[in-house]
Amino acid sequence: MSSLIDPRVLKGFRDFLPDQERERQGIEATLAKTFESYGFVPIDTPVLEYTEILLGKGGGETDKQVYRFSDHGGRDVALRFDLTVPFARFMAAHVQELYLPFKRYHIAKVWRGENTQRGRYREFMQCDFDIVGVDTPSADFEILQVMERSFRALGIERVTIRLSHRGIFNRFLAHIGSAGSSAEVLRIVDKLSKAGEESVRSMLEEVVSHEAAGEILAFIHPEPSYEATLEKIGRLAGGASEDTERLSLLRSYMQETGLAGRFLLDPSITRGLDYYTGIVYETFLDDLPDIGSVCSGGRYNNLATLYTKLELPGVGASIGLDRLTAALEELKIQRAEPAGTEVIVLCLDDSLIGHYHAIAARLREAGLSCEVYPQKRKLASQFTYAERKGIPIGVICGTEEHGRETVSLKDLRSRDSSEEVPLARAIDAIRAMRQRSDA
Amino acid sequence: MSSLIDPRVLKGFRDFLPDQERERQGIEATLAKTFESYGFVPIDTPVLEYTEILLGKGGGETDKQVYRFSDHGGRDVALRFDLTVPFARFMAAHVQELYLPFKRYHIAKVWRGENTQRGRYREFMQCDFDIVGVDTPSADFEILQVMERSFRALGIERVTIRLSHRGIFNRFLAHIGSAGSSAEVLRIVDKLSKAGEESVRSMLEEVVSHEAAGEILAFIHPEPSYEATLEKIGRLAGGASEDTERLSLLRSYMQETGLAGRFLLDPSITRGLDYYTGIVYETFLDDLPDIGSVCSGGRYNNLATLYTKLELPGVGASIGLDRLTAALEELKIQRAEPAGTEVIVLCLDDSLIGHYHAIAARLREAGLSCEVYPQKRKLASQFTYAERKGIPIGVICGTEEHGRETVSLKDLRSRDSSEEVPLARAIDAIRAMRQRSDA
Repeated sequence: MSSLIDPRVLKGFRDFLPDQERERQGIEATLAKTFESYGFVPIDTPVLEYTEILLGKGGGETDKQVYRFSDHGGRDVALRFDLTVPFARFMAAHVQELYLPFKRYHIAKVWRGENTQRGRYREFMQCDFDIVGVDTPSADFEILQVMERSFRALGIERVTIRLSHRGIFNRFLAHIGSAGSSAEVLRIVDKLSKAGEESVRSMLEEVVSHEAAGEILAFIHPEPSYEATLEKIGRLAGGASEDTERLSLLRSYMQETGLAGRFLLDPSITRGLDYYTGIVYETFLDDLPDIGSVCSGGRYNNLATLYTKLELPGVGASIGLDRLTAALEELKIQRAEPAGTEVIVLCLDDSLIGHYHAIAARLREAGLSCEVYPQKRKLASQFTYAERKGIPIGVICGTEEHGRETVSLKDLRSRDSSEEVPLARAIDAIRAMRQRSDA
Repeated sequence: MSSLIDPRVLKGFRDFLPDQERERQGIEATLAKTFESYGFVPIDTPVLEYTEILLGKGGGETDKQVYRFSDHGGRDVALRFDLTVPFARFMAAHVQELYLPFKRYHIAKVWRGENTQRGRYREFMQCDFDIVGVDTPSADFEILQVMERSFRALGIERVTIRLSHRGIFNRFLAHIGSAGSSAEVLRIVDKLSKAGEESVRSMLEEVVSHEAAGEILAFIHPEPSYEATLEKIGRLAGGASEDTERLSLLRSYMQETGLAGRFLLDPSITRGLDYYTGIVYETFLDDLPDIGSVCSGGRYNNLATLYTKLELPGVGASIGLDRLTAALEELKIQRAEPAGTEVIVLCLDDSLIGHYHAIAARLREAGLSCEVYPQKRKLASQFTYAERKGIPIGVICGTEEHGRETVSLKDLRSRDSSEEVPLARAIDAIRAMRQRSDA
C-alpha cells in the first residue's frame, strides 16, 4: 500500500465545518438582506484576472502579497486581493449596460499571501458596498446608514462609527504650509490609535516642523461634540467650505433619522489609502476596541480611472468578515439558531425503510426538515448521532406501530418517554412538541 | 495621461451582472434549502490546496487542466478543479470532529483550464452533495430522492433520472469473460447517447470479441420496465446478487414514496470514472436532451483512501450549475421574481434629503426595501433610473407635501397619476398599491 498523503491545508487557509459554515452563511445572508433593503444589488466577478488589471495601480505592499502566476496560455494572471479593483474593472466594462447611480454589494473571498497572525488569513472574505456615479451628501449618508444598520442587524449594538473628511484635512495642511507632506502626514496620523499621541508627535516632527506637528495634533483632537469639532476643523482649515458644509448636512440627516448618537466626528481618522478624497470612516466595536476597525471606507473621486475615461465618483465601505465573525464569537452575540434538521426518522427495521422515507417525505411536504437514519443500528447509536447533529425530535416506527398506522415521537433533548400518535396526526404532534421544547 | 488598460476578463471567465447574480443566488438558495430539508449540512474548503492533495489520484486529462503554480513560500499549489477531492481531504482531516454518516453539501466555484466551448467555462460552479460513512440502500435512495426533489424545487418537472449499477456490469463482464477490458468497455458504453449504437459496437469490437460486443449491447439495452430490465441484467450477469437485490429495494422505496415514475433503470449508464463501485446515475432534461446530464454521480467504496486508512464509503451527486442555469433560461422556467427594491423616495428638493432618508427608514422598518434617489434631478431622469432598476413604486414629497405631512405615491409601472396620503398611512397605501400592481 502506498504511503498516505497528509490531509493538511495551506497555512493561512481554512476548512469550514458545518457549524462554522452555517454561521458564516447566516452573517452573509443578514448583510445581503440589509444591503438589499437599501436598494443595493449583488454582482460577482472572476477570482482570477489579468495581473495588469489587478496591479495597474499597484502599491508596493500589495504587489508582493498577490498570488500571481502564468496560466496555460502563458497569460500573466493573479488571484484578486480585494473587491475594489475588480469592481473598477467591472464598471469600466459594463457601465453602458448598467445605470447610474449604481449601488452594488459583493461578498466574496480574496487572497493575500501576507504573514499570518491572529485573525489574519491568506484566504478571507470581504464584503464591499458602494454607490458609484454620484457625489452627493445623500449618497455619503446612505453608506453611513447602511454601516450602522448592518451592525445592528447582526446584533451588535455597541459600535461607534468615526468619520472625518480628507478634503478638510488637506485644506488644513495647505493652510499651515504642510501640503507637500500630506500623504506622509495622513499615514502617520492614521497610526494614532495604535501608537499613541507622543509617538505620533515625534513621527510628525520628522516630516514637518515642530510647530506644524503641534497644530496637526490640535487639529486631530476631537472636541466634546460633532458641532464643536466641525467648527474647530473648519476654522483651522481656513474657514467654511463645501466640505464643512457637507459634514454639516450629514449631521442634520443623522438628526432627522434619529442616528445622531451613532456617529462621531473624529479628525484623526484619515485612512491611509491615497484614493480617498471626501469623507472617510472607520468602525470600532465598543467592547473590543483592540481588534481595530471592522468596517472602513470613504469617498473617492474616480473609481475606474485606469480603465476608462468616464468619471465615476463613488462612496463605499468594506467589512472584514473574518475579523467580524471572530468578534461575534468573542462577544457571544446571540444569533438566531441555524435551522438544521428538525426531525429524524429512526431505523428500527430494515424492511420498513421505504415506509420511513415515505414518512419523511410527508413531513418535508409540511415544511419540516427531516432525515431518515440510513440503516438499522442500536437505538443508542442513532440517538447519539441525532444528538451530535442537534436534531430535536425522533420518529420511531417499528413493526407494531406500522401495523397500527402510528408512529412514536420522542423529544431527543429531554429524552422524555415517547408519545404514540396516528400517522395522520404526526405533523401536528411534532409541531406541538417543538413548541413545548422551544418554550 | 497614461494609456488605459482594457477592462477585459480572461477567456472562459465571466462577470455576473445584478440580474444574473440574483438568478444564480436564487438557484443556489433553492438547492441549499432542498438539501437542508433532507438533513444535509454545508461545508467550505480553501480554493487553493497543495497540488499533491489535488492530483494525488491524478487522471491525465484533469492534470493538464489544473491551474497550478508555486506560491510565495515555494509551495506547489493549485486551484481546486472539483469539490470531490477537497471533500475527501476534508473528511480525512476532520472525521474525528464529525459524526458518521456525514451528509454534506458544497456549492462553490472550481477551475479548469479546458477549451472553452458553448456553455463551458474555465471558472464554473459545482454543487455536490454526498452521504459518507454508510453503504446502505437507504442512503442510495436518499441521494436519488434529493436529485429528484431538487429539480422539482427549481421548477423543472420534465426530467428523467437514469440509473444503473457498476457492480452488476462488472459481474456481467466477468461472466462473459471480458473482465480484463472492463475499464475500456465502461468508457465506450458511456458514449452511447452521443455516438449511437453502431459506433459503440465498432469501438467495442476493438477491445472485445465480436460476440462479446453483441452481448454487451444486449445487456445495456433497457427493457420496457424497471423490473424487466433488472431481471435481464441480473440474469445476464449470472443470477441474483446483493447488487440486484439493492436495485430491487430501491425500486420498492420509489414505489412507497410515489416516485416510481421518476426513475429509469438504464444499464447503458456507466459513468466513465474509475471510483464508482455501486449505483451510478445521470439526469437528463426531457426538453433539452442535447445538453447532456445535468446531475450525475454514484456510490464509491472509499472516498479518502489517499489520505487516511479509515474506510469511508459514500454515495453522492454533482450538479453542474452553469449548464443548469443556461437550461433554465432556455426553457424559460418561471422562477419567483427576485425581490429587488420595492420603493424609491424621489428627490424633489435638496433641503428635504434628511426627511427623505427618514421616510425611507420608516418604510424599511415596516419590511419594505427602499432607496432614496441621491440628488435633485429632473423627475423624468429619476423615473428612468427606477424603471431600469425595476422599482415599482415612487414616493414623492415636495415642500407642499412636506408642509401637509403627506407624501404622494406613484405606481411607476402604470405611471398612474399619483395619490396623496398622510405620511402615517404611507405604508398601508404602498402595500395596497403593490397588491393592485401585482394582481
